[in-house]
Amino acid sequence: MEHENSYRHLLKWGDKREETVGHHMAGVIKEKFGLTDDDFGRKHLPGTEPVKLEKPSMLKPAQVEFFKSISGDENVLADDLSRARFSCGKFYGELLDMRLGLVPDPPDAVVAPRTHEEVVRIVEYCSRELIAVVPAGGLSSVTGAVRSPRGGIALDLTRHLNRVLTVNKINKTVTVQAGMYGPALEEELNRQGYSCGHFPQSFEYSTVGGWISARGAGQASTGYGKIEDMLVSLKAVTPAGVLETKDYPRTAQGWDLFRVFAGAEGTLGVITEATLHIFNYGPENTASAAFIFRSFEAAVDAMRRIIQSECGKPHLFRISDPDETDIAFRTSGFDGTMADRVLQMLGFKAGSRCLMFVAVEGEKDYAHFVLKKIKKKARAGKGMYIGTSPVKKWLEQRYSSAYMRDPLMDLGIMTDTLETAVTWENLLKVWKAAHEYVAKRPKAFLMIHISHVYENGANLYFTFLSPMEKGNEKNDFAAFHRGLVETILSYGGSISHHHGVGRVLAPWMEGHLGKSSMELLRAVKRHLDPNNIMNPGGTLGLS
Amino acid sequence: MEHENSYRHLLKWGDKREETVGHHMAGVIKEKFGLTDDDFGRKHLPGTEPVKLEKPSMLKPAQVEFFKSISGDENVLADDLSRARFSCGKFYGELLDMRLGLVPDPPDAVVAPRTHEEVVRIVEYCSRELIAVVPAGGLSSVTGAVRSPRGGIALDLTRHLNRVLTVNKINKTVTVQAGMYGPALEEELNRQGYSCGHFPQSFEYSTVGGWISARGAGQASTGYGKIEDMLVSLKAVTPAGVLETKDYPRTAQGWDLFRVFAGAEGTLGVITEATLHIFNYGPENTASAAFIFRSFEAAVDAMRRIIQSECGKPHLFRISDPDETDIAFRTSGFDGTMADRVLQMLGFKAGSRCLMFVAVEGEKDYAHFVLKKIKKKARAGKGMYIGTSPVKKWLEQRYSSAYMRDPLMDLGIMTDTLETAVTWENLLKVWKAAHEYVAKRPKAFLMIHISHVYENGANLYFTFLSPMEKGNEKNDFAAFHRGLVETILSYGGSISHHHGVGRVLAPWMEGHLGKSSMELLRAVKRHLDPNNIMNPGGTLGLS
Repeated sequence: MEHENSYRHLLKWGDKREETVGHHMAGVIKEKFGLTDDDFGRKHLPGTEPVKLEKPSMLKPAQVEFFKSISGDENVLADDLSRARFSCGKFYGELLDMRLGLVPDPPDAVVAPRTHEEVVRIVEYCSRELIAVVPAGGLSSVTGAVRSPRGGIALDLTRHLNRVLTVNKINKTVTVQAGMYGPALEEELNRQGYSCGHFPQSFEYSTVGGWISARGAGQASTGYGKIEDMLVSLKAVTPAGVLETKDYPRTAQGWDLFRVFAGAEGTLGVITEATLHIFNYGPENTASAAFIFRSFEAAVDAMRRIIQSECGKPHLFRISDPDETDIAFRTSGFDGTMADRVLQMLGFKAGSRCLMFVAVEGEKDYAHFVLKKIKKKARAGKGMYIGTSPVKKWLEQRYSSAYMRDPLMDLGIMTDTLETAVTWENLLKVWKAAHEYVAKRPKAFLMIHISHVYENGANLYFTFLSPMEKGNEKNDFAAFHRGLVETILSYGGSISHHHGVGRVLAPWMEGHLGKSSMELLRAVKRHLDPNNIMNPGGTLGLS
Repeated sequence: MEHENSYRHLLKWGDKREETVGHHMAGVIKEKFGLTDDDFGRKHLPGTEPVKLEKPSMLKPAQVEFFKSISGDENVLADDLSRARFSCGKFYGELLDMRLGLVPDPPDAVVAPRTHEEVVRIVEYCSRELIAVVPAGGLSSVTGAVRSPRGGIALDLTRHLNRVLTVNKINKTVTVQAGMYGPALEEELNRQGYSCGHFPQSFEYSTVGGWISARGAGQASTGYGKIEDMLVSLKAVTPAGVLETKDYPRTAQGWDLFRVFAGAEGTLGVITEATLHIFNYGPENTASAAFIFRSFEAAVDAMRRIIQSECGKPHLFRISDPDETDIAFRTSGFDGTMADRVLQMLGFKAGSRCLMFVAVEGEKDYAHFVLKKIKKKARAGKGMYIGTSPVKKWLEQRYSSAYMRDPLMDLGIMTDTLETAVTWENLLKVWKAAHEYVAKRPKAFLMIHISHVYENGANLYFTFLSPMEKGNEKNDFAAFHRGLVETILSYGGSISHHHGVGRVLAPWMEGHLGKSSMELLRAVKRHLDPNNIMNPGGTLGLS
């Protein structure tokens, strides 16, 4: 059985509930992976043992005393469970470690500073004492960005630095502490008539500082932009001093140096505050539509024409490729209904048809005007409008699919995601190559969607599933994962569009960006963190 | 008389024509500055002498030979006129120097490389030989960014590196060489159905590389963004190697390091190519409107509500403050007409009334929809619609006002511009303080407009005029200019929104950005240009 002190409790997503696999989904899984009801009765590598670390905390008593003198005894934790909790994020390889009872990279202690000034004193001290510092928010990284291979301290920003400081209604901005979680921020903004506009799948369990550090994108990013587009200014503590920028709309006073913190993944310093654009809150204004296309190519072509039409943009804009569309239809029970048969008769065949979802936000007339234009263009691209309810249903469960990973792992099925940004010119090539790669592995399955759309390209988001080789789970996963990354890169995809790089994708950085670019990243790193204490040990390929 | 080899020929703007002051404008000038017809018959500091440099070229013969061996004899110039032409931009203080027969900062030679590879070899060589390199485009800098205080070479990118390399219709991007001028780029794009979307006042005499280096903004930037928003990727030659980035729509693979070239003003390397977003060309779709408001405060309030309404954005969006509106009405002959008397009766009084110009581009229905919404909001803010012709007239002469500077200088009148970015919260404070500052100088006159608008603020653009103290022109101008810069900064303005910093505004950088930020800029500079050869001598306050 599971206990709060078990590996299982730590590795599970979100509210830690035991998610079950629904009836339709179970049917699909059995078919795809050749499982039986018996398999559903067992749990592979359940991780139910209590957490116990092999590595003792290496901090000296005087160092622990220093942290306690700064932030208070109750804000310095060095017990096994706390150290294990802050030892990693939610990368599949990390979850697998936990299921195997492994905690390879725990910090020596977890310190929860109460103020910006405490962060300044802690970072100064750690730089002098050569103690590694890993800034930690919601621990939802899927790229191994939150690990302590060199020990040191994890800085828990969520316990105290979690408040809205100012909502500026004239400038339409919010100034917020880095450790604030999405729902608390959104609730406070909604109360004042605004929205943060940033809704990544991890929304409920990720923080403002994490969003910025990983350069995240929310599900409505096509309209609202990525988090770096919302970022107006920030305050960050580095070993070389505090950087604080002003909230100008835009400047031409040298290059925008503070933007190095967007994407720095904790390697340059600790973001303590950020000022972000906010948006008018008016969910009742949203105009949405779902379409179905006969092929992925047709859907992509329509999507490109829509985004390049200079006719307003949707906020949510997605295409599920044929495999993802198929799963959506089957797990929702739509498959095989009368409506499905009508679709098939009209040429929207399972295996090639694709769903497109659109939602336009903003002022009410505007949202409806833009949607009308989109409908026209979708129709011109041979898309068929299929109502609004698929979008609404999707929005209702938008944060829940992350929970599916745990029961799938219980079934011995690896499931992870990768994502890339790619120009329109290369998009179909990458999409096709990824499918061809995964098709080579027996019983492997890949679904792809597009969910962040730009004038010159879009992202591709890959969800792959496959039964693991029992007893060799780690190597099996690592090799398969590596091959997919390399396929994406070699056909023109970027390393990441919004997950970030962490330690998992770091090995591809130098080859992909080139040596001159990597050396420039490293020069910035050396300047701000001369003793290499900030999230050290491979993040971003810096060392 | 003027000759092609005179200082006057060099200092004059654009096509070098002798611009005359129109009838209405002459009347305003006489009244404001107490001038007479006699003054209009004379030319103060005309600069008609032939150019003659005091500083000899300091390059060694072997160095000149090297440049000739790389780029060909005809592309290496060391005559006085060429060196003087590339010795500065169009900052008022520089024009004044020329009128006084001074060329304080000439390069030792002007080299016009024919290819990216030649730039690579030249930069490598100069870094080794410690020869300063100043990349030069249209020489339209108004901040002293193109000077050679340490001699060395000016790199004329306009002679050969001036072509469109690719128009990618799928990605909707153009890849262009850095030395291409605005009109040639726009013409080529128009021919293929696109527009560059970037129309700074210097458009006709500025280049793509200059736009990026100075972080410029075009007159339609509210819709299309600043040049850095259009920048997809680039290729730049630095002493530390070539940086070349890929044209992804957006990534999360570390921080966007190549963006340091946007705003680097030639201090980090030479941009040779850039890939930019392009836009659909459809001037017939544009929907425009002019409004008049009873006060600047009312106009600004309406502008803020419009831009924050999430209802689409105008591309061109301007407010002229009461002083600029007054000049516009008087120089156009509107002042005192029947229509003017009607306006005055309706409460739109001279001295407090303000013009607002709006133009929405993009797809036709979209442009009209957005304009309709703007009209409604302008009306709700007590603005009165006054037709489209004022906008059209303004667009026709959009690039011509730069020519006025030369005849004004002939009259002994200093005229320069400054500009800043400011949040909505601080905008009126900066506007008021600037007027109060200028009002303290007898016969000085200040006009201000807003021309680049964002959700959280806007720019303020200052044009000041005043008779100069004869015989003490340089000091008189410098002191007055300095006071205005300091007023803007102390009330919450930034150093620049789109002119850049150059050497003129460099002295305020460290105080304004803070030491940590400046040291970060310098660390990037040291890494990419360890021998400090790129545009050295104070640019951006780096040294």
